[in-house]
Amino acid sequence: MTPTRAVLDATERLLDLAIDEDLGPVGDVTSAATLDEKTRGEGTIVAKQKEGLVVCGLFAAERTFARLAPNVRFERLADDGDRLAKGKVAAKVAGPAREILGAERIALNFLQHLSGVATLTAKFVDAAAGKAIVLDTRKTTPGWRALEKFAVACGGAKNHRFGLFDGILIKDNHVEAAGGVKKAIERARRNAPNFLKIEVEVGSLEQLDEALDAAPEMILLDNFDVAGLKACVARVRKSGKKVLLEASGGVTLASIAEIAATGVDFVSSGSLTHSAPAADLSLELELAKK
Amino acid sequence: MTPTRAVLDATERLLDLAIDEDLGPVGDVTSAATLDEKTRGEGTIVAKQKEGLVVCGLFAAERTFARLAPNVRFERLADDGDRLAKGKVAAKVAGPAREILGAERIALNFLQHLSGVATLTAKFVDAAAGKAIVLDTRKTTPGWRALEKFAVACGGAKNHRFGLFDGILIKDNHVEAAGGVKKAIERARRNAPNFLKIEVEVGSLEQLDEALDAAPEMILLDNFDVAGLKACVARVRKSGKKVLLEASGGVTLASIAEIAATGVDFVSSGSLTHSAPAADLSLELELAKK
Amino acid sequence: MTPTRAVLDATERLLDLAIDEDLGPVGDVTSAATLDEKTRGEGTIVAKQKEGLVVCGLFAAERTFARLAPNVRFERLADDGDRLAKGKVAAKVAGPAREILGAERIALNFLQHLSGVATLTAKFVDAAAGKAIVLDTRKTTPGWRALEKFAVACGGAKNHRFGLFDGILIKDNHVEAAGGVKKAIERARRNAPNFLKIEVEVGSLEQLDEALDAAPEMILLDNFDVAGLKACVARVRKSGKKVLLEASGGVTLASIAEIAATGVDFVSSGSLTHSAPAADLSLELELAKK
Amino acid sequence: MTPTRAVLDATERLLDLAIDEDLGPVGDVTSAATLDEKTRGEGTIVAKQKEGLVVCGLFAAERTFARLAPNVRFERLADDGDRLAKGKVAAKVAGPAREILGAERIALNFLQHLSGVATLTAKFVDAAAGKAIVLDTRKTTPGWRALEKFAVACGGAKNHRFGLFDGILIKDNHVEAAGGVKKAIERARRNAPNFLKIEVEVGSLEQLDEALDAAPEMILLDNFDVAGLKACVARVRKSGKKVLLEASGGVTLASIAEIAATGVDFVSSGSLTHSAPAADLSLELELAKK
Amino acid sequence: MTPTRAVLDATERLLDLAIDEDLGPVGDVTSAATLDEKTRGEGTIVAKQKEGLVVCGLFAAERTFARLAPNVRFERLADDGDRLAKGKVAAKVAGPAREILGAERIALNFLQHLSGVATLTAKFVDAAAGKAIVLDTRKTTPGWRALEKFAVACGGAKNHRFGLFDGILIKDNHVEAAGGVKKAIERARRNAPNFLKIEVEVGSLEQLDEALDAAPEMILLDNFDVAGLKACVARVRKSGKKVLLEASGGVTLASIAEIAATGVDFVSSGSLTHSAPAADLSLELELAKK
Amino acid sequence: MTPTRAVLDATERLLDLAIDEDLGPVGDVTSAATLDEKTRGEGTIVAKQKEGLVVCGLFAAERTFARLAPNVRFERLADDGDRLAKGKVAAKVAGPAREILGAERIALNFLQHLSGVATLTAKFVDAAAGKAIVLDTRKTTPGWRALEKFAVACGGAKNHRFGLFDGILIKDNHVEAAGGVKKAIERARRNAPNFLKIEVEVGSLEQLDEALDAAPEMILLDNFDVAGLKACVARVRKSGKKVLLEASGGVTLASIAEIAATGVDFVSSGSLTHSAPAADLSLELELAKK
Repeated sequence: MTPTRAVLDATERLLDLAIDEDLGPVGDVTSAATLDEKTRGEGTIVAKQKEGLVVCGLFAAERTFARLAPNVRFERLADDGDRLAKGKVAAKVAGPAREILGAERIALNFLQHLSGVATLTAKFVDAAAGKAIVLDTRKTTPGWRALEKFAVACGGAKNHRFGLFDGILIKDNHVEAAGGVKKAIERARRNAPNFLKIEVEVGSLEQLDEALDAAPEMILLDNFDVAGLKACVARVRKSGKKVLLEASGGVTLASIAEIAATGVDFVSSGSLTHSAPAADLSLELELAKK
Repeated sequence: MTPTRAVLDATERLLDLAIDEDLGPVGDVTSAATLDEKTRGEGTIVAKQKEGLVVCGLFAAERTFARLAPNVRFERLADDGDRLAKGKVAAKVAGPAREILGAERIALNFLQHLSGVATLTAKFVDAAAGKAIVLDTRKTTPGWRALEKFAVACGGAKNHRFGLFDGILIKDNHVEAAGGVKKAIERARRNAPNFLKIEVEVGSLEQLDEALDAAPEMILLDNFDVAGLKACVARVRKSGKKVLLEASGGVTLASIAEIAATGVDFVSSGSLTHSAPAADLSLELELAKK
Repeated sequence: MTPTRAVLDATERLLDLAIDEDLGPVGDVTSAATLDEKTRGEGTIVAKQKEGLVVCGLFAAERTFARLAPNVRFERLADDGDRLAKGKVAAKVAGPAREILGAERIALNFLQHLSGVATLTAKFVDAAAGKAIVLDTRKTTPGWRALEKFAVACGGAKNHRFGLFDGILIKDNHVEAAGGVKKAIERARRNAPNFLKIEVEVGSLEQLDEALDAAPEMILLDNFDVAGLKACVARVRKSGKKVLLEASGGVTLASIAEIAATGVDFVSSGSLTHSAPAADLSLELELAKK
Repeated sequence: MTPTRAVLDATERLLDLAIDEDLGPVGDVTSAATLDEKTRGEGTIVAKQKEGLVVCGLFAAERTFARLAPNVRFERLADDGDRLAKGKVAAKVAGPAREILGAERIALNFLQHLSGVATLTAKFVDAAAGKAIVLDTRKTTPGWRALEKFAVACGGAKNHRFGLFDGILIKDNHVEAAGGVKKAIERARRNAPNFLKIEVEVGSLEQLDEALDAAPEMILLDNFDVAGLKACVARVRKSGKKVLLEASGGVTLASIAEIAATGVDFVSSGSLTHSAPAADLSLELELAKK
Repeated sequence: MTPTRAVLDATERLLDLAIDEDLGPVGDVTSAATLDEKTRGEGTIVAKQKEGLVVCGLFAAERTFARLAPNVRFERLADDGDRLAKGKVAAKVAGPAREILGAERIALNFLQHLSGVATLTAKFVDAAAGKAIVLDTRKTTPGWRALEKFAVACGGAKNHRFGLFDGILIKDNHVEAAGGVKKAIERARRNAPNFLKIEVEVGSLEQLDEALDAAPEMILLDNFDVAGLKACVARVRKSGKKVLLEASGGVTLASIAEIAATGVDFVSSGSLTHSAPAADLSLELELAKK
Repeated sequence: MTPTRAVLDATERLLDLAIDEDLGPVGDVTSAATLDEKTRGEGTIVAKQKEGLVVCGLFAAERTFARLAPNVRFERLADDGDRLAKGKVAAKVAGPAREILGAERIALNFLQHLSGVATLTAKFVDAAAGKAIVLDTRKTTPGWRALEKFAVACGGAKNHRFGLFDGILIKDNHVEAAGGVKKAIERARRNAPNFLKIEVEVGSLEQLDEALDAAPEMILLDNFDVAGLKACVARVRKSGKKVLLEASGGVTLASIAEIAATGVDFVSSGSLTHSAPAADLSLELELAKK
């Protein structure tokens, strides 16, 4: 997949921070002290994880080298979103060894986190087995939303709204403040920007009925168990209303298959982005013979 | 624990990004459409995790509310680094409901990630049982190093060098380029800033001997198994040299007790920062009766 | 009306530019040379326009004084969105005369432009006479979108999508590229974010029929004359489809009444934001007797 | 005309804002959903205004495409300051259609505003018929001063001082604070930077006499009617003093010819920059056959 | 003297850099390790220079403490521009010792440099003995112009133009390019902004004659010896032309008296700003008894 | 010598400020008014100082031309750190004369200051005659630390710690707060980052003894006279402890030879960076014949 301009812009802003924190106002003192300026090296970025991984973050690794290692050539051998078996090479670098070593850690930190998100997402998608679409949430690492949502897409899931500004999601507090599900939906329809659809969160069959009555475009079924979800799906079908259903709450790799099979359209989980362990990739460097 | 100015500065920079990505140029359209400007609420930030957690990130949550919810009062009931049992309240907020809801997700995203790091770290420290000091690494989320290292400290471990600039860590490539462990140490001693100690990575007993000969302040034992670590410790003791030993590679919650018991001074693990699952905290909000 | 945080943030960024360009690296040399540091003044910001105006930009004037004239007290006597007859005072300032004079021009430049937009919008809204809702467009002054859209709201019209990111508007080129109106809508429905509604631009009755078939949420009737608009409205009613209609192209103060009366839901015009003449407001300053 | 580095720098800063507000953190969702990445197009930017226009802002359009559409070739067919008859092509663009559509609106917004200013200025200059030089003012859109002053120059007028820092303009409040026209001029001469000439605003023949006595380099005749201006010119000629005269206040397209003919050296008007309607230019795009 | 807003703004920008370079992403590790958070101290900033000094930079020291030591009270006992004898206290600080020590060096670095400039300037002004006005130049430390020019003013000299934008100074290359002194002046008068006076540099009596003929407001006599300066002054007096004369080149503390006595109006020297040795001030800190 | 990325980054940040302050929002009005856009020139940057100089800052001059004079070719004829006799050419520039003149002063301001620091440092190093290593301090011009420390290295001295973050330097206040030299060292060893060595400042032989007892890596002998320094050296030798000694306080060109000969390892002086007079370099420009 190709990251959008918005993803690339967010990457530059994170790189500003990453370079400041890793190089500081002084730089890589070890490499400056122990390596000749002219020593060259060739490196490969390799997937090390036994069970393979979905690689994501090559775009960021490339920019890290472009900014910190301007004399290093970065060559991609895979695309963001590709599945790589253990031992597969994702990219090659070649150039001054000092520059490669000064950029290595930041590039890997991007790759390991984003590939971690993409790989975990792919597991959720595989488990859902096409019965429901997997969605992400706004539970992302602050500063990383565009990148993590891109990693989710690389893993085969679909992105939910990006932020508070591009979708109406009416939650329990909004419902309470407005005086009920129906009143909240009506207020949103009247006051919110024309272009945004409305989703409303419900926690009981009563609220579901009230919601169906007000005809939002989507309904979020929050923290229902599998039986509850099935009941909701049945109720909606019976109503004949055209509305999309999203299940959320307690979605894990263990439970997603069953949840996806209840008939909901979407299953969403914050763990895709907030609890993905780093994927295992490393840079293996050979110094040139002199 | 109190975060340093450096941690707070990094927080502001992440908040710049977080606010842009979550609010965009438009803002929280749902709350603006469904809540009266005057509706007030009182909320508690509560630990929800069965086994409890080490809270970290209250400093960031406080700044999130300060910037996005200027009319909301934020009151801490715990300090960063405190262990909180399930159900314990970490902080309270009170003020306009629109402002609370607009800041909630970013504040929680900070808290959940940093408490996740602190909580996982505490588990490693508990497992090491005081036999070795647990250290973090540079394998941090780009942009988050100061915050994640603070979370590691909240969890009871110690910070390794911050970046490439405040410590000499001679790795395999540096050794190869310099023509051996000893030559690399000598080059570093001659060329690097006076104030920085030298650590050298070794992968075999032969390299360990060579390193001992050159008298670095620390030696990193990379990817030895437990037997290998014990052999290294014995060899160092026998040499009578005064040097600190760090074990790294393959350190997990399952293995750390045994590794720490080999006699090394430090055990370091990247997973503290790159693979900690989010801790479970949530904001529970009550709207004021009108 | 109260500007959102997004409007206020955009204001600060424009103020950064405005201060740099008006004060430069040297400052207000005339006031520094001719006024004593201690001379104080009291000023009123007054509507001077014969036919009155809708004031907008007081929020920006207040911030201008806060940043450039920290010792000046700024007191509002009107709210953004109020109609002010000629001679009415919108705000008062009191403090060191040097500071007032150094901030005056920037504050007025904000007020005159935004009040110009709000006042022109109010004329369009009055002319539409409630028969259709007046909408703005993305034809705004670069850097000023949030402020100008707020001014449009102050003038009584409604905001269309904010940018390219929070609404799907399929135009002629998208239609052509996708191979027709219907295919374009289907592609958008499949690929675009879930939360965004779809509007499609049509230029003929044939395209309108094709669009109705694909059931977008809104249809933009582009550059139809009044008769054409009426024909479109009739066709939609006859179809029984539920879709909102927007008329655009050639909308002027002279033509809007007739267009609004055709039965469309919305009438949009770029001139609200790109061609509003400045409103006439001035700051009248009295120096304190010594 | 060629914009200076200062104009180009200001353009980049406005583009930062413009891109943020139009693309947000998500981007052009419509084009991403409906256009293939590979679809190419060729477009022309065309003058559409019946009476022709003075084009200005091609430098900004070029930078907009350079930043948002890096794979699009932008070719100028006119220079900033050229008069273009209806139908004339100002520039061509060719490249990926997605990139062209994502940059189009911002580029046009720059062009339409700046060409509007240049075109209105040209009308004022034509009406002044060479009898007086037309000047702009500091009544510019905040953030846009360098660009609008460049547009004024493209329209054939001359720029007055840029900001508060590069000219001494003594107004009524300065006069009052200093204790009279003469004292104010003397204070300015003593205290202000050596390199700046002094202009003083007068509102009556008495003040004019006092000003002549103190020998400023320029005198601003504020809000005199045509008869008053003629009297001022006569008085100055009679005095034999060498001073430049500027008329301001109530200058319109209808009145400027008469005012310019009174014998003053300069006529200045804020409306050049704060009330110019947008010029009509559009981008006409042809998609490539596949 | 009170610094203008422009000086204060430049100070903040330098502080951004100064804080980054001195504290880095880690902070003051020595104080954090050896001082309790609660230890308090009281310090005085004292002039230590045998011959006294003109203090300048208190405004910057105050801002340094405000930003780095928010809990420290900073109290001024002198104003920028005051002459302080050895042992005199310029300011007091009181608060947490950690904060004081973390801000000390940056504050002193500002004070020592700016007081150095002010003190050296005062020596030049004293030596000129009122016979000519001492001027600075654009030979300032990059980033420091506003601050150094303020220090020059504190030392009793006057500021020349601030930058390339607020004065016309025609040098040898401009003269050559325009085809002679007179042509260059005429071109400047025709093309440059109205409000700026013209100074022309001449290197011989022939050029001086040509310049007098074209009537610039000022003439820069470049690198004349004392006899040459006297000849220039005589020639100008004889011409009866009203023009200000500036001598520059080879101006030292040893030579300025003689140069000032030649009858020129101004003597300018780059060494005021580019070669002033640091003044000797230090912070003497007492820790509170516990 | 080649500047590190950190030096280059700091240079860009200073250039941002330098360009703003010298060009302002208007630019070089003299060159714009008197030179044709097409006039070309060729210039040489020449060492003018009788006794020669150590050139430093060519990297900054090159960047100044790159940013302000994009059509000018900059060719180096010397490297930073080279000794240049009077009359030697450091670099050549060729291109549009307007661009050369607009960049000249900033480029020279960088070169003159940094070459001044490098040249003064070389004098100190020559005087120390290899008997001790010359060190710089943190007494640098705010914003300039990386550049001035690079100039010090060009002059042949060694850099001390960069900031407060990359070395432990225990001064009198830390000692007092911790309750003595020994306690302070122990606290630092326990609390400070592992990688940083410890230096402690002592002011008497008693403190020296206490320090030796606690075995820091370095000891700073503060403000001892030559006899005192000799006594300290003798005491350390007698103790048999391995510790590096640094002398500071009252180090001048006159005194350094004697101080370096006392047997200390390092001599440090703030005057290298805070009191170096500007070196004399100038740009000599020839305009092309037309």
